[in-house]
Amino acid sequence: MAAGRDSEDVDEVEIEAGLRSDTARAIGFSDAVFAIVITLLVLDLRVPESAPGGMLHSLLDQWPVYLAYVTSYLYVAVNWLNHKGTFHRVRCADRGLHWANLGVLFSVALLPFVTALVSRAVEKGDAFDERVAVAAYAVVGIVLSAAWLWLYHYLSRHRELLQAGVTARFFEAERIRAALGVVAYAIAGAVGWWVSVPVALVVLLLLPLFYGLTSNGSYGLLRRLRHRR
Amino acid sequence: MAAGRDSEDVDEVEIEAGLRSDTARAIGFSDAVFAIVITLLVLDLRVPESAPGGMLHSLLDQWPVYLAYVTSYLYVAVNWLNHKGTFHRVRCADRGLHWANLGVLFSVALLPFVTALVSRAVEKGDAFDERVAVAAYAVVGIVLSAAWLWLYHYLSRHRELLQAGVTARFFEAERIRAALGVVAYAIAGAVGWWVSVPVALVVLLLLPLFYGLTSNGSYGLLRRLRHRR
Amino acid sequence: MAAGRDSEDVDEVEIEAGLRSDTARAIGFSDAVFAIVITLLVLDLRVPESAPGGMLHSLLDQWPVYLAYVTSYLYVAVNWLNHKGTFHRVRCADRGLHWANLGVLFSVALLPFVTALVSRAVEKGDAFDERVAVAAYAVVGIVLSAAWLWLYHYLSRHRELLQAGVTARFFEAERIRAALGVVAYAIAGAVGWWVSVPVALVVLLLLPLFYGLTSNGSYGLLRRLRHRR
Amino acid sequence: MAAGRDSEDVDEVEIEAGLRSDTARAIGFSDAVFAIVITLLVLDLRVPESAPGGMLHSLLDQWPVYLAYVTSYLYVAVNWLNHKGTFHRVRCADRGLHWANLGVLFSVALLPFVTALVSRAVEKGDAFDERVAVAAYAVVGIVLSAAWLWLYHYLSRHRELLQAGVTARFFEAERIRAALGVVAYAIAGAVGWWVSVPVALVVLLLLPLFYGLTSNGSYGLLRRLRHRR
Repeated sequence: MAAGRDSEDVDEVEIEAGLRSDTARAIGFSDAVFAIVITLLVLDLRVPESAPGGMLHSLLDQWPVYLAYVTSYLYVAVNWLNHKGTFHRVRCADRGLHWANLGVLFSVALLPFVTALVSRAVEKGDAFDERVAVAAYAVVGIVLSAAWLWLYHYLSRHRELLQAGVTARFFEAERIRAALGVVAYAIAGAVGWWVSVPVALVVLLLLPLFYGLTSNGSYGLLRRLRHRR
Repeated sequence: MAAGRDSEDVDEVEIEAGLRSDTARAIGFSDAVFAIVITLLVLDLRVPESAPGGMLHSLLDQWPVYLAYVTSYLYVAVNWLNHKGTFHRVRCADRGLHWANLGVLFSVALLPFVTALVSRAVEKGDAFDERVAVAAYAVVGIVLSAAWLWLYHYLSRHRELLQAGVTARFFEAERIRAALGVVAYAIAGAVGWWVSVPVALVVLLLLPLFYGLTSNGSYGLLRRLRHRR
Repeated sequence: MAAGRDSEDVDEVEIEAGLRSDTARAIGFSDAVFAIVITLLVLDLRVPESAPGGMLHSLLDQWPVYLAYVTSYLYVAVNWLNHKGTFHRVRCADRGLHWANLGVLFSVALLPFVTALVSRAVEKGDAFDERVAVAAYAVVGIVLSAAWLWLYHYLSRHRELLQAGVTARFFEAERIRAALGVVAYAIAGAVGWWVSVPVALVVLLLLPLFYGLTSNGSYGLLRRLRHRR
Repeated sequence: MAAGRDSEDVDEVEIEAGLRSDTARAIGFSDAVFAIVITLLVLDLRVPESAPGGMLHSLLDQWPVYLAYVTSYLYVAVNWLNHKGTFHRVRCADRGLHWANLGVLFSVALLPFVTALVSRAVEKGDAFDERVAVAAYAVVGIVLSAAWLWLYHYLSRHRELLQAGVTARFFEAERIRAALGVVAYAIAGAVGWWVSVPVALVVLLLLPLFYGLTSNGSYGLLRRLRHRR
């Protein structure tokens, strides 16, 4: 068996010398997961059961479903943009990076579930159900931010995986933003549980917007400014 | 933090110099979303509940579902061809373009929902439900045309994102076609609401056909003509 | 407007000169559709509702579902292999080819629906329902074969789209095989309707096997033979 | 017809000479299937039906669903990493390899079904149902390991398909690991059926972890060690 391992070791060196796009499959796989998650959200937009003539009323009645759909779509979209901005700077991937990435995808895949929880609670639950659903959404937000924290931390410690010219400092800064995400979703959950569900919902809607405007994707803005110069 | 931003800024310049296929991920992600949406439509083709011996009758009974499936399949297919024709002319993407693209995908993802609404209303609703469902379908058509309008407008203003040899004029012309789409779907919705549901359905079926035959993908036709010369 | 068209025409020439992988998006999109369809089939493998202690019995009871799953999985797999073998020989795609391809994908996407029909009829329907379901499956088989016929016919008439070294004869031969598929599925449907449902089911199971063994993918076999020489 | 075959044969030689990324479509297709399967798992995380005020209780009540989700997510993730590690070493694919790959995907696609079985049995079934569900999960584990065995065996016998520098020994070693997987899942099933369901569940949870830590993806670990030297 030891002999087998040795020969495997040799394989690696020879194969990897000829490979540059080591992240291609991780990216393709992640894009598919993001695409499926963002489309699964629409499955919650169910045609409401209603008596003949009652469709308009029951469509309007399920407004929380539409709001939850928009919020979660924005959230997944921001995560995809973040993911793109991150792997843009990664030259090759090792197993540790794959697992951190699978952690991010695991958490993203939970969003349709907690989104459905929130719209269900607002539609049919009582005040206690709403607090439970908002807290569950916040917990997934915390888990997702923590997964990004793990990914950024891993990259800041493995400069050999990064593109030439990318400094470790970049992912150290991202790490701070991810840690702030953990805190922000914890606060949103606490507000929802002890203070006010509507306030928490507004915070949960605004958080992706904030990350969308400030995240590593801000290169688009920077580039355009540069072009004007 | 300001120092961190500076170093990030430097990263960008160095990384982006070596990247050409900046749109590859946006394209892969969009293709996956289109593929999922076009396949989700088939989920509405449910096996009808029926007593033993009643399958044929209940299959024939749900003919509006088949018509809605074909219509929406055509609509998504035309959107995919449009998307392909558009990104064919885009050299690289910035955040603004990504958000416009996410807007298009957001609207496309709503099509299975309103398709289900229409077939449900025709099958089980009354005349009022049919008007509601046709109006909802038209609203999504308007939103989708508006998203294309946003995308084309953005591209006509950001020539630095386009392939060499693509004139801004091209996307200015597309912008007009998208604006006509907004108007056309508004008219279809108004006809469905105030005049006649069947007439509106025919218009909704014909609109994708019209766009399919005249859209930027007409290069196929042009090319073949050129080959014969 | 005519001026706009002219400038678009110029765009085309200049852009297309620099593009070779014109089929990349059609292939990526098709792969995603095939992957979704093949995975949607598994959604019919539902956990049966049963009283505590009755799971084994109800799992065994739904054996037609498993058979239908295997049959349709094979069918989709063979279609994917065909698709791969076909686009392997295509250099670039025009709009006509895209529509023929969308026709194939449209028909493939119907397979989970008719698969569910068949297993439902065998499980809960009477003899008449079974004939209806088998006929519906055969109709989709006919439509799918006809879509391939359309695609092969188109390619045999547009040699400018093919890879260098691919003769028009190849797609003329494939066209015959697709036409035979139309006939074979028509016969299977007729047998199911007028003669015997079990015999028709066996034919429907064997047809993909036959196509899998003889289709254009036979290059694998040929190549291995060549390697041994 | 013989003439047609001859000309096809010529096609092959000429086309294939110019193709290197023959596995690109198999990889893209497989990635999409893995992504869909891993996301379908989340569909089992259903919003529980509950009276107003009862959401928290019914969410906590369905803890087996969460455990089953995590277990199966890990299992699919490990399979994806294995798949990546395997095709990393494959230069081109023939039909035999495609069918072995389709066998792996077929088995992976069954995981959401047996995962749902297990969580259903733990939630609502009796002791007998639990034994049935665990056995069914183990059977899919056996089938999946056997599919990998088939794939590895095929690759160990077709060195002409491998990347330069990859020894046949590598896939012979992997073949042993796959065979051990068949045995391990058989034991887990037997333990679940005759000894203890909880013990079997723990084994089923640990098996993917074991394979994740020791599989061909261990190159990540090896590489990092090399980097430190």
